Amino acid sequence: MSAVDVPVALLGYGTVGSAVDRLLAENAEDIERATGHRLRVVRALVRDEAKERPHAPAEGVLTTDLARIRDDPSIAVVAEVMGGLEPTGNYVRELLGAGKPVVSANKQLVAREGAALFRAASEAGVQLRFEASVCAAIPVIKVLREALVVSNVHRVVGIVNGTTNFILTEMEGGAGYEEALAEAQRLGYAEADPTEDVSGADAAAKMAILATMAFGSRVTLADVGYEGIEGVTGEHVAAARSMDMVVRLVGQATLAGERLDVRVGPALVDRHHPLAAVEGAFNAVMLQGDAIREITLEGPGAGGMETASAVVADMVSVIGTTGTGFLQNDACWRTLERLPPGEARSPFYVSIRVDDVAGVLAQVALRLAGRGVSVARLVQEQSNGAATLHVVTHEAAERDLRSALDEIADLPETRERPTALPVVSDRGVAGLGWA
Amino acid sequence: MSAVDVPVALLGYGTVGSAVDRLLAENAEDIERATGHRLRVVRALVRDEAKERPHAPAEGVLTTDLARIRDDPSIAVVAEVMGGLEPTGNYVRELLGAGKPVVSANKQLVAREGAALFRAASEAGVQLRFEASVCAAIPVIKVLREALVVSNVHRVVGIVNGTTNFILTEMEGGAGYEEALAEAQRLGYAEADPTEDVSGADAAAKMAILATMAFGSRVTLADVGYEGIEGVTGEHVAAARSMDMVVRLVGQATLAGERLDVRVGPALVDRHHPLAAVEGAFNAVMLQGDAIREITLEGPGAGGMETASAVVADMVSVIGTTGTGFLQNDACWRTLERLPPGEARSPFYVSIRVDDVAGVLAQVALRLAGRGVSVARLVQEQSNGAATLHVVTHEAAERDLRSALDEIADLPETRERPTALPVVSDRGVAGLGWA
Repeated sequence: MSAVDVPVALLGYGTVGSAVDRLLAENAEDIERATGHRLRVVRALVRDEAKERPHAPAEGVLTTDLARIRDDPSIAVVAEVMGGLEPTGNYVRELLGAGKPVVSANKQLVAREGAALFRAASEAGVQLRFEASVCAAIPVIKVLREALVVSNVHRVVGIVNGTTNFILTEMEGGAGYEEALAEAQRLGYAEADPTEDVSGADAAAKMAILATMAFGSRVTLADVGYEGIEGVTGEHVAAARSMDMVVRLVGQATLAGERLDVRVGPALVDRHHPLAAVEGAFNAVMLQGDAIREITLEGPGAGGMETASAVVADMVSVIGTTGTGFLQNDACWRTLERLPPGEARSPFYVSIRVDDVAGVLAQVALRLAGRGVSVARLVQEQSNGAATLHVVTHEAAERDLRSALDEIADLPETRERPTALPVVSDRGVAGLGWA
Repeated sequence: MSAVDVPVALLGYGTVGSAVDRLLAENAEDIERATGHRLRVVRALVRDEAKERPHAPAEGVLTTDLARIRDDPSIAVVAEVMGGLEPTGNYVRELLGAGKPVVSANKQLVAREGAALFRAASEAGVQLRFEASVCAAIPVIKVLREALVVSNVHRVVGIVNGTTNFILTEMEGGAGYEEALAEAQRLGYAEADPTEDVSGADAAAKMAILATMAFGSRVTLADVGYEGIEGVTGEHVAAARSMDMVVRLVGQATLAGERLDVRVGPALVDRHHPLAAVEGAFNAVMLQGDAIREITLEGPGAGGMETASAVVADMVSVIGTTGTGFLQNDACWRTLERLPPGEARSPFYVSIRVDDVAGVLAQVALRLAGRGVSVARLVQEQSNGAATLHVVTHEAAERDLRSALDEIADLPETRERPTALPVVSDRGVAGLGWA
């Protein structure tokens, strides 16, 4: 790896691919200063060479034949920026198997098929990097793998979907859910079909990758329980505000002893928690560990140029560390069990609508106490003969809270099934609970 | 570098040194999994081998003779955790000259003598890393050098001193400056002599290092204009709150065309800016660049274990990249001029105390307008026949604002010299001004 000129290749030449090509060309001097090498895109795999492209690559770069990348010994690293599961997964495995280091921006691929990909990389002794697959240019994978080697990260809490964070921020400003979603679509933050984002599925894939890296145990998308923001209402937002909190879609990955719990869902975040300050389409990830207490990284979690910047940084890192074995190996070294459903612990916010009659508060309090759920804060609100109890509990097992809420739902004074959301309020405390 | 067992050495064996020793021992398996190597402290330079130590190293590790480290070919990297300028600087230069990679936690040394140190490292072809010298475990140097290679970072804004941030946060809660300082001292956040922190000197050294890394031009402590928080009053804090801002000690490094400006001082930070959410003794650094827009890193900026964690990560990085040339070279590749005093541009907060008589507002407004300073917000406050004008300006050159304030100070209605503080409110905007 002493050549100044280093040929590289791309899988895909869309928004991100062409941005990678441009970044490499425009910043060739910066890269050479930092690493001694110039990375130059010599080949890009596409389905149709003849297709019109806003940013066309140099003559002869486009190809429809993977072999022209796989079998070219001069190509030092390949960036996968085509997306999708197949044929992309096959291409990546084939390249790794042929001894080509790969950089991927594909969160679905890494979250679903990470095990097979990392095995192929390990067997071939080449690197597989994937910074751009989680939160675009926010270098959370690099920090987890290289800066926090000795930190025993036991908890990752993040806002890892910009679309839903934009919608929730708009709702805080008074917009309704539908209105906020429409605005997100107008600004290009949300797709015409926003399901992947608003359902929590996108965030779940990212949390699977982060949990795998943080805990060294394989977590795939199927291991992540997730819930979206479709059920978040103006009442939730108003109740949160009245208690100096905000509603956010929060991903939480927690190591509880030798078991792990990974989930995504709406939560109330204390105003003094760093995640509460994350506004609009931004992302942030907080990493909690032994030696570091906590480190939070915030930035734009999406965007073609931002994603391309992370891809380029990974390509540069591959070139810069070739042959040293540094962090080439699979991060997974153990198999941790999942925490059974209901055992995860968290403080909760509960909203209970009851008849405004004497003794009802005592009834509710008794049911919570009977399951060992203790109340940290309570606000009672009157309206039209009914009362709404806004309760914030101390940390409790989800199962115990559900049981108490079942009993409260059965009280004759209860008007509708109580709703519950986890509360995120810890700061630097090495709790074993998941919130 | 194929040996599993990698001997390393320390300069100093105090709080940080012993923590590095313990982290390396306790996390040996994690490090081996990540890198294939086990780092083991075989030698630590101290002044007095016989001194009682709370955490004693293994038999035979302590030495008073630098040659036993410098001339031992088996030692792969040396961590400087002794602090001070001399003899530390001499030791480091000697080690680098002898071909030993060095990791330093010493911000004063790096900020003052970086040029000589990096030259020695480059000449010997070995690495000099210094993550722990800025904001302890927050991996801002790694992110700047390795993740943002192609981002053209043009602005760094940070809260890089935990002591002053703790004091200012306490003042927000109603405490006076002296009371908040005493509390910081009681909790161990401030030294008995707090000058280094409260004067802004500590933050200035860190900003010098960050600016050097971000802009590729040598910035030493002498190039950084700084001002401390001794002059911040309860009135500043209250005025900030009334305008939905907070007072923070902010370091700002800005590339304005081909010139740079680096400074530290109290500033008003908009409540929606990520830095406004940084509370207590925490630090945060925002990096603004082309491809990434902005990335903010937040965490504990001090602490023995946190600092040790950054030292260990650097040692692991040195071992993991030896022989590849990756980022070993000096970050400085150009020499940029300083922006002349007064040319830096920023929005400002100005407080003007005047007689409460007709026409005075017009007089003030005229003086500002005469110097091209335009008003963004104005709040007038009455008390005892006097009025205080709280003014937030649009971006203006500091020199023009000073001239306008000189004229306003000379008005017969003005009761005392107006005070001005910069305002930090931009989000992701690639402005050329410094705030």
